[in-house]
Amino acid sequence: MSPSVYGMRLDGISAHAPEQAWSNARVAARLRLERMRLRKASGGRLSPEQAKLFETSDRWVRRFVGFTERRFCRDGEGTIDLAARAARQLFERSGLASGDVDAIVVGSVTPSYLYSPPDAAMLQHELGIPVWRGPAPREIVGADVSLACSGWVTSLMFCYALIRAGLARRIILIGADRMSAAINWRDRSFATVLGDAGTATLCTAVPEAEDWFSPSQFWSWLDGSQAEVIRATAGGSRQPAPSPPEVDAGATRLAMDGAAVRKILVPFVGGPAIDAALAKANWKLEDLDLVTLHEANLTLNESIVKTWRERGLRGQVLTAGGRFGNTTSASIPLALALNPEALSIGKRFGLFGFGGGLSACFAFGTIRHPLPTWSNQA
Amino acid sequence: MSPSVYGMRLDGISAHAPEQAWSNARVAARLRLERMRLRKASGGRLSPEQAKLFETSDRWVRRFVGFTERRFCRDGEGTIDLAARAARQLFERSGLASGDVDAIVVGSVTPSYLYSPPDAAMLQHELGIPVWRGPAPREIVGADVSLACSGWVTSLMFCYALIRAGLARRIILIGADRMSAAINWRDRSFATVLGDAGTATLCTAVPEAEDWFSPSQFWSWLDGSQAEVIRATAGGSRQPAPSPPEVDAGATRLAMDGAAVRKILVPFVGGPAIDAALAKANWKLEDLDLVTLHEANLTLNESIVKTWRERGLRGQVLTAGGRFGNTTSASIPLALALNPEALSIGKRFGLFGFGGGLSACFAFGTIRHPLPTWSNQA
Repeated sequence: MSPSVYGMRLDGISAHAPEQAWSNARVAARLRLERMRLRKASGGRLSPEQAKLFETSDRWVRRFVGFTERRFCRDGEGTIDLAARAARQLFERSGLASGDVDAIVVGSVTPSYLYSPPDAAMLQHELGIPVWRGPAPREIVGADVSLACSGWVTSLMFCYALIRAGLARRIILIGADRMSAAINWRDRSFATVLGDAGTATLCTAVPEAEDWFSPSQFWSWLDGSQAEVIRATAGGSRQPAPSPPEVDAGATRLAMDGAAVRKILVPFVGGPAIDAALAKANWKLEDLDLVTLHEANLTLNESIVKTWRERGLRGQVLTAGGRFGNTTSASIPLALALNPEALSIGKRFGLFGFGGGLSACFAFGTIRHPLPTWSNQA
Repeated sequence: MSPSVYGMRLDGISAHAPEQAWSNARVAARLRLERMRLRKASGGRLSPEQAKLFETSDRWVRRFVGFTERRFCRDGEGTIDLAARAARQLFERSGLASGDVDAIVVGSVTPSYLYSPPDAAMLQHELGIPVWRGPAPREIVGADVSLACSGWVTSLMFCYALIRAGLARRIILIGADRMSAAINWRDRSFATVLGDAGTATLCTAVPEAEDWFSPSQFWSWLDGSQAEVIRATAGGSRQPAPSPPEVDAGATRLAMDGAAVRKILVPFVGGPAIDAALAKANWKLEDLDLVTLHEANLTLNESIVKTWRERGLRGQVLTAGGRFGNTTSASIPLALALNPEALSIGKRFGLFGFGGGLSACFAFGTIRHPLPTWSNQA
């Protein structure tokens, strides 16, 4: 006897960005301060190559990244705090009861704690999701999922798999990252880019005929041959005990070879990757009414979209407008939540995660039910 | 048009434990050395409570944990190295070609790198899994999944969901952890317990009628109200910049309130949790031919099994025999790989993950095809 097969709809998207805004000028000033400290510590000697890592400006960031500002958490706040605020906003605004949720999937690359406890378990408690029904424990599915900048779309795919397999019916999908935790203030490459945000998306089972993503319109890719272009060299299990000088030098923070990332990802996502994904979905570029790309860099994304436009894309590009930085696992749902007017029934969308690993995960779907969104932003 | 629904079989389990063995006596000596260092640093003054944290012995560990030894990686090795060795052994011994794999799911709480690159992407490259087919990229699904000690069974459930949803056909499921990276040598609670190991399990789609896990014999639980009983207080996104004294004191390493863990988990897993899971599966304790529990502590596990025996369990308990420590995401597949003679066709098994979070994930299934296993251990 086969269990019923369900489809999945998105039932609401909630986004929360912390209040503390950092303009490009403030980031540039922070880098200059760090350069001064380093000069003092090293007796005033910095090589031209070293000095260059601290140089940036509002003009440079606007031109080469396309960002104007980003938000940072307060000290002591982590992914769980961003996730809990976004999820509480989802409960309050949607009227959903905490007892209606039977799964929590947390997409994040910045877990609140190393090793344990997982954010999914902490979130159960933060949200008061019931885990007992009288004397019997109430089942609740959950996990933390990570795949660098492709993690949110991959987590969405896992939610889809859980629902289609009948293992969950109503999932809180978190996309949240405190990326400020990963900034090396001695290296402009990510310092000018990263930001903090939390999102919560409600994924609900629907009869298969109403499935937004049928038949399996997801496409994934991994290429570890380029793993070093976006990496934190120390702090993980390969080097769990970095020395204080290594920590000071930023070895536990993310570093990026921006030129290599652009050189690889623009032609790949612009061409063969989207072609393979569309071929699997049996869709064409012309079918996409709405596209949202992981907002790592708006200038880079514009290069990708330019290629797509030349090849037939006519749809609207939804972004967070460069006002929140690269929020990694939060970037795509944040951009969706900030553009509620675009999310009307019948629209066909493409969601594009790509980045560290290297990795990519794309999703295509059709909005078939109302999709309310909420954010704490104007 | 609905896609076909598939079931899942396990097609082989490979386990790799590093060579470097640490006996209980060696762990006790290492703790004494650390106590000497701390006394020296603090001018010889340690409170009785502090001193107690360093006290252990072979006899104590055998009695209260049930372990005799554990294995540790070499410096510079992390989860990816353990995972790659287990997966290569799987390829070599099974005859599987790397091009036969279309997904990589990595269950681990000790990612090789913070933030990026994900282990799933690095593993693609380490194993030479092809990502191009002529000019077109070849789809490969992947992610890193974490849920403390419940992470491997949860990752198995995600593999099941991917296969049932038609999103993958042949998945390499890694369960690997370099838990030595999480040891605080100033605290016997985890120092006497943790070990390093890697495993690779091949999860393959089969016609639904041959499904080992039908209908959805998984059961999951989260309870964040007890999150602090197994935790590393610093190093995650809530406290990403611990001071050198905090690092020296072990704030970035795992700590456990062992008495609380035992007090909560023994009655919970022994009673209401297994009852709820069996009720969902429509199975009874008497139906289980083989059971494998996450090997956090064999003494604790014996208390759980005692409860089950009193209530009707007659099946065989498969363990790694306390010879490898608590290897977190590797523990259950390691125990299975070390007991190949038990894994015969027709046997009904229960796999029980539980621990940090708190969290639990259980799987019930029936071996319906040959299940070869391989390990680098005698």
